[in-house]
Amino acid sequence: MNPIIECVPNFSEGRRQEVIEAIADTIRAVKGVRLLDYSSDQNHNRSVFTFIGNPKSVKEAAFFSCKKAAELIDMTKHKGEHPRMGATDVIPFVPIKDITIEECIELSRELGSEIAKRLSIPVFLYEESATRPERRNLANIRKGQFEGMAEKIKDPNWAPDFGKHEIHPTAGVVAVGARMPLIAYNINLGTSDIKIAEKIARLIRERDGGLKNVRAIGVMLEDRNIVQVSINMVNYEKTALYRAFEMVKMEAKRYGVNIIGSEIVGLTPMKALIDVAEYYLQLENFDFNKQILENYLLQ
Amino acid sequence: MNPIIECVPNFSEGRRQEVIEAIADTIRAVKGVRLLDYSSDQNHNRSVFTFIGNPKSVKEAAFFSCKKAAELIDMTKHKGEHPRMGATDVIPFVPIKDITIEECIELSRELGSEIAKRLSIPVFLYEESATRPERRNLANIRKGQFEGMAEKIKDPNWAPDFGKHEIHPTAGVVAVGARMPLIAYNINLGTSDIKIAEKIARLIRERDGGLKNVRAIGVMLEDRNIVQVSINMVNYEKTALYRAFEMVKMEAKRYGVNIIGSEIVGLTPMKALIDVAEYYLQLENFDFNKQILENYLLQ
Repeated sequence: MNPIIECVPNFSEGRRQEVIEAIADTIRAVKGVRLLDYSSDQNHNRSVFTFIGNPKSVKEAAFFSCKKAAELIDMTKHKGEHPRMGATDVIPFVPIKDITIEECIELSRELGSEIAKRLSIPVFLYEESATRPERRNLANIRKGQFEGMAEKIKDPNWAPDFGKHEIHPTAGVVAVGARMPLIAYNINLGTSDIKIAEKIARLIRERDGGLKNVRAIGVMLEDRNIVQVSINMVNYEKTALYRAFEMVKMEAKRYGVNIIGSEIVGLTPMKALIDVAEYYLQLENFDFNKQILENYLLQ
Repeated sequence: MNPIIECVPNFSEGRRQEVIEAIADTIRAVKGVRLLDYSSDQNHNRSVFTFIGNPKSVKEAAFFSCKKAAELIDMTKHKGEHPRMGATDVIPFVPIKDITIEECIELSRELGSEIAKRLSIPVFLYEESATRPERRNLANIRKGQFEGMAEKIKDPNWAPDFGKHEIHPTAGVVAVGARMPLIAYNINLGTSDIKIAEKIARLIRERDGGLKNVRAIGVMLEDRNIVQVSINMVNYEKTALYRAFEMVKMEAKRYGVNIIGSEIVGLTPMKALIDVAEYYLQLENFDFNKQILENYLLQ
């Protein structure tokens, strides 16, 4: 058993390449961590990093990247379209393999405590790590942004989970938390009628009475002249991909519309697709950890 | 890209535990190799080892285990029920990830040359590595066994691919080759009529006009009072698991029989199941190497 987690921190710098590289270097320097991707948006003036590895190393890389961002980013001078409240804006931990969401929550608490103590940046726990229901949603915490945070943090309702009731003068505050991997999964329909995609999206998503852990909207793919049900699967372990697929198929039937394809955007943990194969092959007693060769080769 | 291959050598010793452990130690000693399993059969007086890793390290482990077997096993004194022709009887290389069967063939040739040169054991290339059609099947090479090999190897038709035309006095000869991973895949039917399983097995297997790379028989599962189509998928890349599954389903239909489950016995490369998920989800443009998180973590 080699636990693996993913970390996807967002930093409030998307323009100065030397700052972005300096942050990347702090992550690359940690043994046991692999930096998979980082990308910046000039308009948002913001960068997203993705790295994976063993929990201890990932926490270390998260800490040092946050430290570097605090040294190099001055929020009093930051401008960008995306809402933000700190030099490091948000640090989510995501369980990938052989680790529970509970262990990721614990790790987020450890990191939060360390950031507050050693960097003097107040920390809010969010998503699965949230200590109050209204803090699960990052948007609630971030409301007022960096400029309003000095005042907001003095309100006892918005006392940080770690650190003092005052923001770091230049680095602001940071949200740290655990969440399940999100799989961006789109299903293409054999029609150009956007109303059908919108109706199906409503029928399958949690918000309107569909499947739990499924968020969905209908979108038009102009270049192909077809519509798509664009889905975020926010907990593939509890709500597997095949269930969304089969439910879209079922609802599309009443319009005489077929699924003509689907796509996964970006990364997925292997298990999300193995679960699909298990379902369709009706596999009995399959042991994910022991029967897949590659699982013996993971660091 | 981190190529991974599997090696499943068979040694002619299944009784003396200290010999089996000494062979295991030579494999464990090689960095970059992971010994997944080894098991011995007392009646066969034979052991099978399974290890995986990068090609260079796997070749090295194969060489040193073969060397150790030649030191500790005297074929002139070996008795066992299973046919055999050498202290190390057979060494297959199996491509697992980011490596082609052609590269495994090349690796088997390198190992064969090394064994002949450094250990003075003649080598026959078999399966995909075979230099003549009649040498693809290991049973043809092994015919006559250790005791008949001294004579057989003098026949120009049975000149070894590497080494002299005389056997190693105590270690005999060895077969080295490359083959695709074999997946043991069984499909259970909702009937106790063995004739139905036998008919379906014949219809789906290569030998009788069915799918290429599929071997199948019908078997009775007494304890569950159902029948099973027991399948060996010998090339899952060319003939994917879902094709066997769907063909069994289709043929079972005419008897009004359903598939009630299926099982994978032992190990499978991840990709064999990812291919299944791709088919059933109708995935478009899925990039196996880039979109599966764990692929970034393989050594």
